[in-house]
Amino acid sequence: MSHTTATARTGQTADRASLLRSSLSTRATAVEAAIDRLLPPVPGAEGRVIDAMRYATLGGGKRLRGYLTAEIASLFDVDDARSYRVAASVEMLHAYSLVHDDLPAMDDDDLRRGQPSTHRKFDEATAILAGDALQTMAFEILADEATHSDAAIRIRLVAALAAASGAAGMVGGQMIDMEGEGRSLSLPEVERLHALKTGCLIRYAAEAGAILGQADLTVRARIAAYGRDLGAAFQIADDVLDATASAEELGKTAGKDQAAGKSTYVALLGVDGAAREARRVAEQAEAHLDIFGPEADRLRDLIRYVVDRRS
Amino acid sequence: MSHTTATARTGQTADRASLLRSSLSTRATAVEAAIDRLLPPVPGAEGRVIDAMRYATLGGGKRLRGYLTAEIASLFDVDDARSYRVAASVEMLHAYSLVHDDLPAMDDDDLRRGQPSTHRKFDEATAILAGDALQTMAFEILADEATHSDAAIRIRLVAALAAASGAAGMVGGQMIDMEGEGRSLSLPEVERLHALKTGCLIRYAAEAGAILGQADLTVRARIAAYGRDLGAAFQIADDVLDATASAEELGKTAGKDQAAGKSTYVALLGVDGAAREARRVAEQAEAHLDIFGPEADRLRDLIRYVVDRRS
Repeated sequence: MSHTTATARTGQTADRASLLRSSLSTRATAVEAAIDRLLPPVPGAEGRVIDAMRYATLGGGKRLRGYLTAEIASLFDVDDARSYRVAASVEMLHAYSLVHDDLPAMDDDDLRRGQPSTHRKFDEATAILAGDALQTMAFEILADEATHSDAAIRIRLVAALAAASGAAGMVGGQMIDMEGEGRSLSLPEVERLHALKTGCLIRYAAEAGAILGQADLTVRARIAAYGRDLGAAFQIADDVLDATASAEELGKTAGKDQAAGKSTYVALLGVDGAAREARRVAEQAEAHLDIFGPEADRLRDLIRYVVDRRS
Repeated sequence: MSHTTATARTGQTADRASLLRSSLSTRATAVEAAIDRLLPPVPGAEGRVIDAMRYATLGGGKRLRGYLTAEIASLFDVDDARSYRVAASVEMLHAYSLVHDDLPAMDDDDLRRGQPSTHRKFDEATAILAGDALQTMAFEILADEATHSDAAIRIRLVAALAAASGAAGMVGGQMIDMEGEGRSLSLPEVERLHALKTGCLIRYAAEAGAILGQADLTVRARIAAYGRDLGAAFQIADDVLDATASAEELGKTAGKDQAAGKSTYVALLGVDGAAREARRVAEQAEAHLDIFGPEADRLRDLIRYVVDRRS
């Protein structure tokens, strides 16, 4: 490889990384704006639960799930107004799961993204209700005609979100996680836990873009597989981060999984082994995109971003 | 009125009351069977959350909401398999709200229908997750093709359930209820609280039968108004019961609302005044049924059953 080519490639890589950062930031702002529009403050006693819902959803964050939905929908030229509604609804579903996971009876977390978790900022009852209402609202948005004029597409989104979220998805994963505390899980058990707990919803976020875009079933399956593997890589990288980053970098309590006696990829494979496994799954995720050309480059770069992030 | 006629009428009333009891019991059994089929036990760690979901939904109860859906759907000759799926889903949504309302951070109730509440039988974390997953499952059932072949009808059910359940419905009512503890609410405030907290879901249960039956908008509006007023009568009667019945009759702690400093119809109107108000709202509920003939007699008798019940 000549010196010029190497420089050009490095330059290109740097350009692409900066393009991704700018795309992430633009879409995160648009997702935030959509949530703000869908969830306006209201006066009265029930305004408190709305305030808590806004607090839980408008506090920033990477918006990985919303990004996936909007970016993938854009591959199919879906109207922005529609894709950001769906992106907002998946972020609401995600926020509900965080609010409930942070509760004293669950993970008992005081901090979320460097800020007091919802039950610390408000109170436990309000946090339970805000989580409940965020879940409802995610489905309500999908059912609304503004999301898509075709009822068949809306109901496909509802069905896919419900499948990703319930006892056979996210909630089931959270249950396995709690049951597994204090005993050692095997690697396949840890993989299954995370596939349910975080993988299902990330996979859904990707698939939702393809559903909105009316992608054919083969393409939809590829995108779902990309989302699934991206989610797995994300989770393994998360375990590595939890073991190596500081609380300041993370914006949440560091080393907490280990302290809670949770079985992690790091506990099973060591830091280096877990980092290697993250890269292996990342390559697998990228392979699902080979049906696309350069239009999917941001989705390719997103994989590296997810594996290499420091927070 | 001759003696013979009076006897005949009394006989007819007794017959109708017994017909209603038998109809309630038959439909409750069918709703229970539908829940059992939709929510089979599973092995593994996530089986615990399924066990808690089954515990919360299969413990009997009046099944008023499921009855409304199935009985009203039958006015439009809806297939039983469909109407009992929708009836099961509204009972799951209702059960989720009870499980979360009973939590220590909310109403802190140890008993539900004379049995330990879900967080007492299992644990708090499992109860939170079981409630979460019951809500998801209610939407999942509605989105499934088995509920109706027409996606437009399924999405209408999803939209109506979401509107009844969220921050502008049931959850909003629960929030007003908690905020109102310890201070006096006015009669309009108490009416609004209950319209949201219990009224919206009872109204939905009735409306769902009309949606399934593809009733025209006028008929659907009448049925929704019937459900709304039936729900209000139910709640006022509940306040009267809470003030007058024993814990044994109720299967839950009696006099609890008063002890919690909650504003009730009884506190505002007295026992007799509240009982009169229940009868007034009951008559209003019955008036909405005047577009129907004798085929709606069980819905008429249901109003009396709801107002006169002792548990």
